[in-house]
This record gives sequence, structure tokens and C-alpha cells, in this order.
Amino acid sequence: MTVHLINALRGVVGDAHVLLPELLPDHELTPYQQDWRKRYQGRALAVLRPETTAQVAAVVKLAREHRVSLVPQGGNTGLVGGGVPDGSGQQLLLSLKRLQKVRQLDAANLTMTVEAGCVLQQVQDTARHAGLLFPLSLAAEGSCTIGGNLSTNAGGTQVLRYGNARDLCLGLEVVTAEGEIWDGLSGLRKDNTGYDLRDLFIGAEGTLGIITAATLKLFPQPRARMTALAACPTLEAAVQLLGLAQSRCGAALTGFEVMNAQSLALVARHFPQLIQPLGPRPWTVLLELSDNEGETHAREQFEGVLSEALEGGVIDDAAVAESLAQSQAMWHLRESIPLAQSEEGLNIKHDIALPVSRIPAFVAACDALLAQHFPGSRLVNFGHLGDGNLHYNVQAPEGVAPADFLKTHEAAVNAVVYDQVMAHGGSISAEHGIGQLKREELTRRKSPVALQLMRQIKQALDPMGLLNPNRVV
Amino acid sequence: MTVHLINALRGVVGDAHVLLPELLPDHELTPYQQDWRKRYQGRALAVLRPETTAQVAAVVKLAREHRVSLVPQGGNTGLVGGGVPDGSGQQLLLSLKRLQKVRQLDAANLTMTVEAGCVLQQVQDTARHAGLLFPLSLAAEGSCTIGGNLSTNAGGTQVLRYGNARDLCLGLEVVTAEGEIWDGLSGLRKDNTGYDLRDLFIGAEGTLGIITAATLKLFPQPRARMTALAACPTLEAAVQLLGLAQSRCGAALTGFEVMNAQSLALVARHFPQLIQPLGPRPWTVLLELSDNEGETHAREQFEGVLSEALEGGVIDDAAVAESLAQSQAMWHLRESIPLAQSEEGLNIKHDIALPVSRIPAFVAACDALLAQHFPGSRLVNFGHLGDGNLHYNVQAPEGVAPADFLKTHEAAVNAVVYDQVMAHGGSISAEHGIGQLKREELTRRKSPVALQLMRQIKQALDPMGLLNPNRVV
Repeated sequence: MTVHLINALRGVVGDAHVLLPELLPDHELTPYQQDWRKRYQGRALAVLRPETTAQVAAVVKLAREHRVSLVPQGGNTGLVGGGVPDGSGQQLLLSLKRLQKVRQLDAANLTMTVEAGCVLQQVQDTARHAGLLFPLSLAAEGSCTIGGNLSTNAGGTQVLRYGNARDLCLGLEVVTAEGEIWDGLSGLRKDNTGYDLRDLFIGAEGTLGIITAATLKLFPQPRARMTALAACPTLEAAVQLLGLAQSRCGAALTGFEVMNAQSLALVARHFPQLIQPLGPRPWTVLLELSDNEGETHAREQFEGVLSEALEGGVIDDAAVAESLAQSQAMWHLRESIPLAQSEEGLNIKHDIALPVSRIPAFVAACDALLAQHFPGSRLVNFGHLGDGNLHYNVQAPEGVAPADFLKTHEAAVNAVVYDQVMAHGGSISAEHGIGQLKREELTRRKSPVALQLMRQIKQALDPMGLLNPNRVV
Repeated sequence: MTVHLINALRGVVGDAHVLLPELLPDHELTPYQQDWRKRYQGRALAVLRPETTAQVAAVVKLAREHRVSLVPQGGNTGLVGGGVPDGSGQQLLLSLKRLQKVRQLDAANLTMTVEAGCVLQQVQDTARHAGLLFPLSLAAEGSCTIGGNLSTNAGGTQVLRYGNARDLCLGLEVVTAEGEIWDGLSGLRKDNTGYDLRDLFIGAEGTLGIITAATLKLFPQPRARMTALAACPTLEAAVQLLGLAQSRCGAALTGFEVMNAQSLALVARHFPQLIQPLGPRPWTVLLELSDNEGETHAREQFEGVLSEALEGGVIDDAAVAESLAQSQAMWHLRESIPLAQSEEGLNIKHDIALPVSRIPAFVAACDALLAQHFPGSRLVNFGHLGDGNLHYNVQAPEGVAPADFLKTHEAAVNAVVYDQVMAHGGSISAEHGIGQLKREELTRRKSPVALQLMRQIKQALDPMGLLNPNRVV
């Protein structure tokens, strides 16, 4: 039976692209079978590397015939174990990385059609070479794929202006659970012909169908990008600054990141070579403007916002980047926080979203509860304040072994944080998805009506349960 | 049986809000049973006017018990007959108009939660009184409801910058086909906890669930809005002007409408009092800027774009509004086209979308075919060029009775137009939806895989087929 399936799969994707764990040294399959944070290790029946949509469809039909389940995978950079096989040795790992053609770039329509395996940075570069912008940007952009970005509805640093991956996609090509190809590629900004299938597959983490290509929105390149740092006395003030910057700059405000003192203290400890222009402050905000007129105009805009904020006591101090290098150095500070955390040791990560207006109350309540129940624990709180998205991470107290702290307290810390998230109208997964990591938590936290609707949809589109089973729902 | 149901419905929504066609003069029910263009007349078993979500849920449960189908209706301003009952006298017409509370306005989060029956203009006004903008804007805004806008994913004049109704909604409250209430109201910009139920209900025209409330995105009010008209020698030039304006103005470009000579000739004939600043031109473009800095800056921006366009031969002439009154007069020209068409007599309307880059080729091909097959027919072609959305309408030749022309040629004209739309990668319904009007056409034109997915979803969420049956799918 299995031999028969393997031979048939070889016939579809070619011998060289059916990798069998039983025949290969472990390390050759580790990139597929283990997530990069090493939290999930699986074992596949085989790793398949198709090159075309037709091959993906043929693979799904074979899997269906043999009632074998499939786990689709892009760059394997996810944070929730959504793209790693289970340990049964019975699942097919379907890597989409070889689907990497840029099928079309239509500059006049500001769209581009790419296959699922294109690496995000390659997509950004292709757009830039055409004088255009594909704005999705996140830490893993050098290795994550656009198919994975769409399957998880990735967020990142430009969401404030351009939206999530969902908002950047006009159309999809998807292989359904029946092995049919839905050609929903489309360069249309408006199309009200029936149900929104596109958005159903986006963010479904490969459980409803397999995204094989997408038509993406492009934008004109801004003429200038400029960054500033501002020190806010309180988190309330940071929220006020956001409102002020949005009102004065509108869509030119493309970044608004917040970092608490602890975040930048860790950066200072582990990366002392990085200059922190404002020194230690309760809250540091990074603002980014993308300007269609040029640098002079961007600078005037910044000066307007920041001087009004200074006068109103919303900020204590600010520094506007004088050069591209300074801008990059400011972003580098922000991006170094997760790395500094890793250097400091294991920590308990929370990727949460809240209404912007409720963030100060949430943080005050949650900080107090954690201080009370887990004395000395360090709150490394930073993220995309403009989107209401915090990475509210909890690090072991100084001198306590991180692994021990996690082992003893992780579940209890999560309970405190997620209870407060729910109490403040928030979400337990802002931009990382559900995968394996948060599936139980989702079952506990999501409304029963929503869960029931989700199960009905899963049952309707994948009645045999072969697409990435036991993930999300 | 029916008496039993009617009594139970009276118990739920109150005697005064169960209107029975058999007991009332026709004209009292016409606003519910006939669409405003008088293309669809139906007859309901009863017209129900609930006031709360709980009442809607109770009505659905009763309908389910009695296996009676429901047609949800908002302002009854739709163009495709989606909200009018059939002629059987066996359907319940569910008017959502009395659900009209503004539940919350959160200025710091830039969101507002409103009930489905709120009239769009009321939503706009409420936002404006808080110093904010709800940008959805369309001709029927004085009487359409936000529930209808979302159920049909309405478009309008601000889509270029702010997107369709879908893009302006963060969360929904929906009564499911089982009569359960899904509380998916949410003020979150990021939430990756499972399938995108919100976007499934948006645009589903009441066939998957009944939208009872929504959380909407708000924006800072721009400091200035300014309008200009420009004359383009060709449609290709109009597309070039769009690219130029987008590149120079970015998100400040909030409107980009195109009008062919025939459109404005009809306006001149029926509304001679309206000044046409540029006189007759092959193509006239209306541009709108929304500026966060002020009028002076907006004017500079316009001057930059238009002088570059003049030098490059992209436009022949232009007029920038000198006052709010002049801006409004320019918009009034554009908005008078459908009215002028009505004055001229019945016509064959097409609400189509195309990739912007393919619009000139589509129009050239389609114009030529129509001229060949229907000599003398007049092409009234105008619309939201920035979104790739044309209202490509066909008026009877001068001197031919419009009703006769339609009777003889409507099907053949539609076939020519929709064949060309499909050949150019377009959509047969850009912003008006499917309803009854385009259901057969959709079945012919949509991919079988997509239709199959849609039917599976309908079957999963409304297995008894009680929600707006025979619409969309």
C-alpha cells in the first residue's frame, strides 16, 4: 500500500523530490520535520517537493486515494508549529518551496502574481526592481514564503498603513481537498461575484486548501522614508502620540512601534554596541514616515508632530534620524529585542492584540497581576502599538534558570495573560496564528458559536480531514 | 400552521411589527416588497420588523421550526433584487431597519460599533461629530443601511484609498441559520484566531447568516479635500494619469473617476444648468485629494501632478476647484450621469471590474463590437477608474424607443459585454453583487470549482436553505 503510494508520488514529482526519512540521514530532513525554534519535531512518511500546481493537485488526489494526510509547508519559519508533521510517520510533508515562479508583474495595475514558494524578500525585490513596493515586511523575510505568509495572514511592521497579508492579496490559486485547482487569481480591486473564498483560505493555515499562487497588491515606492524615536512618560502618552501622528500624517505614518524600558535594557545588556539615542526611558516609540514628496517634507512633518507632542507633554524627548543609516539603526534597536531575549534565555511569548484604547489598562492590570503572582518576573513588552499588537513576553526573574521558570509557571502565566486579554476585548493570537501551539487555548477562549461555524466549514471543504489535521480547529 | 407561526412572530417582535400583506393595502408594503428600480415585485408571507438582535435570533428559530424561508432587507436600495421576497407569498421579509443603535464609538481606537439598520449617512455623521471620518460613500447613502452595505460589500467613491465595505469592517455580530448569535464584534486590527468568518458573511447577501451589527474602522478627518477635472485625449492617457497621481500623491489621492464624452453629453442635455468647466472632451477625469496638512498643500500637490501631466501630453487641460462649492459642483457632474441616463430612458447597465491596465483594450474591443452589432447604440461609460470599476452602460440609439431596444437586444448586449469582460480578466459584478439579477450569469461565468466551493459552504452553514434562498448560489 505505502510502496504503491510512494511509487505513484515519485511518478508525479520525480524521484529526487520524494524524500524518505527511512532512507536519509536525519539532518537532511530536519529542515522539514522540525520548526526553527525547535519546539516541534515530527516524522513524515515522506517529504514531497513538487514544482508546479498540477503536481500539487496530483499529490492531493493520491493522498486522498490512500487516505493519507498532508501537511503543507512554506519556509518553515512559523511560530506555532503549523507546518511540521506529527510524530506518527504517517503524514506527507508537502513543501511548496519549489513553486517559485513570478508569473506576472503588471505595473499599470499595481499587481504581481507569484507562486507560493517565492521567498518574501524575493517578492519585495522584484517589486522594487520595477520601481514599486510590496510592503509586507517581517523578521523572517529572508526565508519565509509568500504562501506561508498568506496561510498564516502574516503581519509585521507595515500593517498600520498597508494591512496584514490578507489586505495585500487580490486573488489566489488554491488546490482544494479534492485535488481540484481553483483559479481565483485576479488583478481586480472590486469583485462581488459570490462568497469571499480568498479570505477563507488566507489565514486557514493549510487546513482548507493549499495556496499555490497569489496575485498581490503593489504600491508606488515612497520617495523618502524617515524614522524617529520619541520618549513617552507613560503608555497612555504613547497612545496619545499615535492619535496625534495619525491625525497629522494620515497614511504617511507607516510605522509606530513601542518598547518598554525592560526591552531596551535587554538590548543594552546583550548588544552594548548599539547606540540608544534617548537612553533609558519608561516607553520609547519608534515612528516611521513614508513620504511621496521627499525627505524635506518628511522632516517637516516629523518636526510638526514632535514639537506639538513636546509642548503637550506627550513626549519628553525625541530624535529624528539624520540619515538612512540612522533610520536603520533605530529599526535595528527594535528588531534586536527578540534576539536579546533569546540571549537572556527562554521566555514565555505572547502575541496578543487589543483595541488600542484599552492597551494602557490591559498593561497596568496584567503587569500588576504578574508582579503579584510571579515576583521578580521581567515583562519584556514591545510591539506594533499602531496595530494594537503587543509582544508581551515574560522573562524569568534575574538569577532564576529560565527553563525551570517555564516548566513551573508557563501555564499559570499564560492563564493570567490570556484572561486579561479576553477581559480587555483582545485576541490571543494577533499575527502568528494557531497551529499546534494555541489550539487548545483557542478551544477554551473562542466563542462556541464561532468554533461551531469553523468546524462546519472544515467539514464541508475537507470532509476526510486530510489537510493539516489537528491544526487550528 | 401559518396562524400559529404568525402568532409566535407577534409574540417576538410585537403585533405592530408583523405586517401582513393580506390585511394591509398594497402601498404600505410596496417599500418592502418591491425594489426601488421596480424591476422586482414580490409578495411576502409577512414583513417583520424586529428591534434587537435577540428578536432576530428568535425569528430565525421560529422560521426554522416552521421551515419557512427568510429574506433579510436593509434600506432596500440594492440593484440586483437581493433583498426582495419572491412571489410565492411564503417567505418572511425580515427588515433590519429598526436595529439602529450606535453601540459604541471609541475615538482612541478609531472604531465604532453600530447596528445593521443604521443608515449610512447617520454613520458618517456620527463619525464626523466625533471629529472622525467613516469613508464609505455612495449614491444611496441617505437611505441604504450599513447592514446592507456589508452584506453586498458596497463600493462607492472612496474605494481607491479606503477600500470596499469589507475593508472598513473589523468585526461582525451575525445571527446564524440555526438562530444562534455569533458575537464577532471586535475592535482589533490583527486577530489570527481561526477562519475568517467575518469576510465570509460580508458580501454573502444574507444567504449564510444575518448581519445584525458591525464594528467599523474610522479615520482622522483630512484637513482639506480638493477636486480637479482633467481632460485626457484617450483612455490610455487617463490610465497614465492615474499612475502619475498615485505615485506623486500616494494615499492622499482619494478619488479618480472617469467619464466618457457621451456621459457628459447626456448630463448637458438633461441638466443644462450644470457648468462643465472643460467643455466636451473624449475623456474627462475627476481627481480628488484628501490632505492632512491643508488646502495650500493640496493645491500644490494638484499643481505638481497636473503640470507634469500637461507637459507629458497626458492631459490637454485641467481645472482645479477654487472653493468647496466648485468641488461639489464637479462631483455633482459625475453624480448626475445616472440621473441623466434615467431621463434619457431605460438602458442596459453593467457594473464591471477589470485590471486597470486592461481597461483601454477592453473598451476598444467592446465599443467596436457593440457598434458593429447594434449600430447607433450609445455607450455611456463612466466610473471608478482608480478601482478598475466601470459602469459601462448601453443606451438605445437616438430615436429608438428604449423599451423596445431592451426587449430585443438586452440579452445579446449582455453576452457581448460579459464575453469581453471575461476575455480581459474582469468581473461581471464589481460592486453591486449578484442577487437575483446575475445569478444565472454567475453560474455561466464563474469557475465550476468556485461554484462548487460556494455550494459546499452554503450547504454547511444553511443546510435547510432558509436564508435568502435562490440568491447568489
